[in-house]
Parts: sequence; C-alpha cells; structure tokens
Amino acid sequence: MLRPLGNRVIIEVAQEEEKTIGGIVLASAAKEKPQTGTVIAVGSGEVLKDGTKVEVPVKVGETVMFEKYAGSEVKYEGKEYLIVAAKDIMAVVE
Amino acid sequence: MLRPLGNRVIIEVAQEEEKTIGGIVLASAAKEKPQTGTVIAVGSGEVLKDGTKVEVPVKVGETVMFEKYAGSEVKYEGKEYLIVAAKDIMAVVE
Amino acid sequence: MLRPLGNRVIIEVAQEEEKTIGGIVLASAAKEKPQTGTVIAVGSGEVLKDGTKVEVPVKVGETVMFEKYAGSEVKYEGKEYLIVAAKDIMAVVE
Amino acid sequence: MLRPLGNRVIIEVAQEEEKTIGGIVLASAAKEKPQTGTVIAVGSGEVLKDGTKVEVPVKVGETVMFEKYAGSEVKYEGKEYLIVAAKDIMAVVE
Amino acid sequence: MLRPLGNRVIIEVAQEEEKTIGGIVLASAAKEKPQTGTVIAVGSGEVLKDGTKVEVPVKVGETVMFEKYAGSEVKYEGKEYLIVAAKDIMAVVE
Amino acid sequence: MLRPLGNRVIIEVAQEEEKTIGGIVLASAAKEKPQTGTVIAVGSGEVLKDGTKVEVPVKVGETVMFEKYAGSEVKYEGKEYLIVAAKDIMAVVE
Amino acid sequence: MLRPLGNRVIIEVAQEEEKTIGGIVLASAAKEKPQTGTVIAVGSGEVLKDGTKVEVPVKVGETVMFEKYAGSEVKYEGKEYLIVAAKDIMAVVE
Repeated sequence: MLRPLGNRVIIEVAQEEEKTIGGIVLASAAKEKPQTGTVIAVGSGEVLKDGTKVEVPVKVGETVMFEKYAGSEVKYEGKEYLIVAAKDIMAVVE
Repeated sequence: MLRPLGNRVIIEVAQEEEKTIGGIVLASAAKEKPQTGTVIAVGSGEVLKDGTKVEVPVKVGETVMFEKYAGSEVKYEGKEYLIVAAKDIMAVVE
Repeated sequence: MLRPLGNRVIIEVAQEEEKTIGGIVLASAAKEKPQTGTVIAVGSGEVLKDGTKVEVPVKVGETVMFEKYAGSEVKYEGKEYLIVAAKDIMAVVE
Repeated sequence: MLRPLGNRVIIEVAQEEEKTIGGIVLASAAKEKPQTGTVIAVGSGEVLKDGTKVEVPVKVGETVMFEKYAGSEVKYEGKEYLIVAAKDIMAVVE
Repeated sequence: MLRPLGNRVIIEVAQEEEKTIGGIVLASAAKEKPQTGTVIAVGSGEVLKDGTKVEVPVKVGETVMFEKYAGSEVKYEGKEYLIVAAKDIMAVVE
Repeated sequence: MLRPLGNRVIIEVAQEEEKTIGGIVLASAAKEKPQTGTVIAVGSGEVLKDGTKVEVPVKVGETVMFEKYAGSEVKYEGKEYLIVAAKDIMAVVE
Repeated sequence: MLRPLGNRVIIEVAQEEEKTIGGIVLASAAKEKPQTGTVIAVGSGEVLKDGTKVEVPVKVGETVMFEKYAGSEVKYEGKEYLIVAAKDIMAVVE
C-alpha cells in the first residue's frame, strides 16, 4: 500500500473512453489529458507555519477534478497512479 | 454536481453575442476572450496561514468579471465551465 | 454597476488631449500611455494574513496616478475602465 | 499637488551639470543616470502584514540617493518627478 | 556515518532490475530514473518561522517514493546515496 | 556625509595592489573584483514583519568581506563607495 | 581571522586525491567538484522573522557535506575557503 505524506492525495486517474464508430476505435488526434480520478488515499494534512495542521479536503472514494499537469505519475504494483498536492484538486464531483 | 474546493469559484462563461448584419454572421477576426460569467458554485473559503478561513466574496447567481486567462477550463456533463480562484475575480456586475 | 472586489479600484482613465495646430490634429508618434484617471469605485479592502482588513487608500471621485501597465482594461456598458490593485496607485492628485 | 500613497516618496531628480569647455557644451557620451534628488513629498508609510505602520524614513527637503532604475518617472504640471518606494532609497546626503 | 541536517533524509535508492531474455541483458533505451528507496537516516526536523520544530515524517528502514529529480546524489565510502528534503518524499510504501 | 538607510552599509572598497616586476606594472588579465572593504557608515537596522528592529551586525571601521556583485556603486564628493545590504556581508576580517 | 556573519559557515574544502598509476598522475576528465570540507568557523545564527535566533547546526572541526555549487569562494591570507549558508549544509560526516 502507498501511504501519501503531508497534503498529498493518491488518485487513480479515469481512463478516457475511446470513441468508436461501429466498433472501430477512432484515433483521437487531440485526445486531452484526463483531469478526473478517484481518490485512493489521502495524507494526514499540511502543517502550517504556526504549527497547526490543515486536513486534506477530500476523502477516499471521492471522484475529483484536478489541475492539468498537476502531480507526479508513479507506478506501484503494475498500476499507475497520480500523486497530487491537495491544493491542486479543484473540485469534487458529486 | 461539481463542488469547488478552497477559494475556488465555478463560472459559466458568458458567450459573446455574434454580430450580424442582416442576419449574416460576421466572422470576428479579433474576437476577444470573454471575461464575464455567472457564478455556479463557490468553495468554502481559503485557509490563511494562521488557520482562519476567508469566505469567498461572491455568491451563486452573481455575474462576475474575472482576470483574462485566469482559471482552468473544465468540461462536466457536456458543458464547459471555468474554475477560477476567488482572487482572480475582479468585480461583481450589479 | 461594477463593484470591485478586495483591494481593487475601478478607474476611468483620462484621455490625453490631442495636440492640434490650427485645428489640424497632429499624429502623435510617441503618444504615451496615460497614467492618470478618476476613481469610479473602490473595493472593500485587502484581507491580511492575520485576518485584519486594510482599507483602500483612495476615494471615489479622486484623481489618481497609477503605475504604467498596471491593471486590466475592461469594457462595461460601452465604456472602458481600468481595474487596478490599490498597491499600484502611486499618488493622489490634489 | 501630488500626494504619494503608502511607502512612496516623490523626488525631484538632480540634473547633472553639463561640462563645458569655454562655454561650449560637451556631448557626454557616457552620461550616467543621476541617482540623487530632493524629497518633495512622502507617503504615510507601509502597512506591515500584522497591521502596524512603518514610517517612511526620509523627510521633505532632504537630499537622497536612490537605487539606479528605481521608481517611475511621472510628469505633473510640466515638471518631471520620480516616485520611488522608500525601500529603494539607499542613503540621505547630509 | 552521515548525519543529515534539518529536514533532510538519506536514501539508498532502489536499483531497477534489468530485464533479461534468456539471461541476455536488454539495453533499456528508456530506462526511467528510479523514485523509490530505503531511508538510511533522517535529520532532526525543520525549524518553522516561529521557532517550533516539525519532525521528519519518515523513519529509518521505511521504503519511500520521492519526487523525480529531487535531492542531491552523494558518494560516501564507495556507496551512492540520495539526500532529499522531507517535503520531496511523496509516499511511504507499506 | 552619507547616512545609509535601513540595513544598508557604506563600504570603501579595498583597492587590489597591482603586481609589479621591477617597477613595471603588469596588466592583470584576470583581475578579480575585490570583495573586501572598510565600513564607513551603517544604517539603523532592518524592520522585521512584526515591527521589531534587527541591528546591522557590523561596525564602522571594521574590514568586511561581501558577496561578489552585491550592492550599488555610488560616487560622493569625488570618491567611490559601495552601498550593500547587511545580509550581503559574509564575514568580518579580524 | 574571518568571523562569518548570520547563518554562514566557513569551510576548508577537502582536496580530491589525484589518482595515480605507478606514480603517474592521471588527468581526470570528469573530476567532480568536491562537496566535503572541514568547518573552520560558524556565524552566530539566523534571526527569524519573529526575532528569535536559530543556532548554526554544525561545529568547528566537523566534516560536512554541502550542496554542489553552494556558497562563495573567498581567499584569505593566501588560502581558499568556501563560505556557505547553514541551510546548504546537507550532512555531517561522523
């Protein structure tokens, strides 16, 4: 298991569904980088300059939308994840 | 529904009306990026370094003017939105 | 009406008078960007890191001098305005 | 009159005396930008992050030396002035 | 022994296993920089601006995942280590 | 007299002695910029964000070593000085 | 004697031993910049924004490892030293 530190969140990024016409996969020239995923694990929060801790504002299982190009892609046990800072999560999809 | 985090605001950007002459749509060569939109949702506010929270200074339904190039464009259920930080909202149109 | 947020100030920029010789308008090759204007509206002030609020130091109706290239030009009801941060206003013309 | 805001200082920049030989003005190829001037007006001081105010450390009438390229040149009633931040004034000439 | 200072952590970086086919080592053209390693030593923590100390959130012996390109490679007694700041450690592998 | 403001220090920079062989001055191709000088005057100190003042840690008459390229060169009454911020003084030569 | 100011540390950098084969000095094409040295003197510490002082975490005589390219090289009485900020010292070699 990966336990994120500080204000980090581990996300399993949603795969874009490929568009097909009659079963034929279309090459998507301008396929955009997905910005949505499911929260897998959250860190214990960020320590502010005065020593207090701010909780990460998302929960495991929530679907979130994050800033484009945010975070670091990592591989763990054959699967890919994105580790992003809580501040780069823009919204929760409810 | 999209629930914005922190000091973020979700905006439905106003579409520029296309100028027409006798019903014919004119190609607008220098069409500027719109900077106005309607607030759809607001985050719960920004946490300052000393732990206090600052409310987002706009309300759902208000028309706002934001900095050019501010925010991230996202697509949600087929519609496009702009997620901007509260600090990039310049004024409320009343 | 435009209501500026935070430490922002809405300014109606002074138009440079065009120099004329005998009624003929002279093309001014080196026409400088005006840096003076009239305050139309002021925000409610900036929130400091410790939560206190600092008032905007100019009043509606005052003529102010602002930093070159400061602020964002916006159009509202057919008129152009400049929205500048209070910190970019250098002086009040009295 | 120009009333500077915050920690700003209005300076009338000293004119470099042109060197002449027998009354003939010499073109000074490497004429340096002057860095000295007389204080014309001072702002009411800078507000620190905790809300206290720091006085501007120079007085009207003093001759000061400022950082090269500091400040903004402005024209007011046909005369040129330099508006500099107090932190860019290096020394007082006594 | 190397004793790291402040919020630094000394890591022995995990070696990527080379892929072999029938015992033949394959040249890996796109061999990625490893981002995992074992904590060898941790500093005594970071001193915040108000003088309090924040402990390093990892322990000796833990396997950690760190930001790509983080830290400084050093050689000590013939072995290579990576010295990274605690803030660049993304997650603990449990 | 020049009275430096804030955390500034006025330094009379030490002149590098030119090397001569039998009285002939050698052109020094790689003459380095001197980094040592004598303190002529010190400012009253830097005001911290919480309003307290930090004294300048050098005294008039001391020989100091400063960062390369630190400070501003000024001319006063025909003599050249360097005005450097206290934080750019690396060491006192005792 | 050189007395470092603030959080600075004066280091006598360790000389890399040249590799020789049978007494012949080998030109080392990729000779790396040494990152180890002996502490010669330490400053009295850094003053934090709230006025408290943080001691330099190394002592005279200790062998330390510092960030590559950190510090300023100075010459004093014919010998070369490196003056580095305490924050650029990564570890103590014990």
